Amino acid sequence: MIQAKPLTAADFAPFGDVLDASGGPDRMINEGLCGRFHDRARLDFGPDGRACLSIFDAVPRDLPYELTLLERHPLGSQAFLPMTEHSFLVIVAPDAGGVPGDPLAFLTAPRQGINFLRNTWHGVLTPLHAPGLFAVVDREGPGVNVEEYRLRVPVTVTA
Amino acid sequence: MIQAKPLTAADFAPFGDVLDASGGPDRMINEGLCGRFHDRARLDFGPDGRACLSIFDAVPRDLPYELTLLERHPLGSQAFLPMTEHSFLVIVAPDAGGVPGDPLAFLTAPRQGINFLRNTWHGVLTPLHAPGLFAVVDREGPGVNVEEYRLRVPVTVTA
Repeated sequence: MIQAKPLTAADFAPFGDVLDASGGPDRMINEGLCGRFHDRARLDFGPDGRACLSIFDAVPRDLPYELTLLERHPLGSQAFLPMTEHSFLVIVAPDAGGVPGDPLAFLTAPRQGINFLRNTWHGVLTPLHAPGLFAVVDREGPGVNVEEYRLRVPVTVTA
Repeated sequence: MIQAKPLTAADFAPFGDVLDASGGPDRMINEGLCGRFHDRARLDFGPDGRACLSIFDAVPRDLPYELTLLERHPLGSQAFLPMTEHSFLVIVAPDAGGVPGDPLAFLTAPRQGINFLRNTWHGVLTPLHAPGLFAVVDREGPGVNVEEYRLRVPVTVTA
């Protein structure tokens, strides 16, 4: 059993980026009416991939959540931007010799997205509220870009 | 004076892409719990640019709106994904010999994003509700990627 902690950029840095409008904009544009928080994700599509923008519509889950499956994308990063103001559950795990180590769970604040670094073990998209609607920026290109790992013993994630 | 029309993919196609979860997913992933509406934007970052993911926080506007400025990005596309469930105002114009022609205005439905094609004249980001929070996918790289055109006579955009 693991407990989901509030997502922070520092805790999440080994796994990816927190994407939000915190900390002040990098610059103001549009005659001062828009703050630009610039280039906040370590996007990585490899030498033969390209950026791909998709919409995901996922079934909301409840806490406690039974984690049974982790996956990673060896060829590219993957960013999730909620198209709602709801928080969602983010699960990651360090790599431990080609399989996931002990998973960590985070709860985003409302109005936060995340970007998983290339090859980071993570749970599937787990919104906690309807609609589970996200914009997703990931890699399109040749090669097999997903590896799955099914846990022998499910891990319960609590609030 | 122009009236904002509901955004449709067909009307908007010459200017860009409508990004939403309409029309059924291209495939189901995550054991059937997530619909993927795959690769919906004509992203274009040119030969020497790269994808850049930023957050924009813009001041909400009201209708009627006074349009005074159009701009375009000659080196790359630019996608706006609302991080709220609110609709927003989208203004575009055809090119007329290097300057904007007559502008058109669209109101998105809730839960819709858009992608402007490279070199498309458009108004600045105009949310109509707070928070005016968007994920933006555009181009980073060398070169001057913005051209502005200030209208001599403002155009009033109505609902």
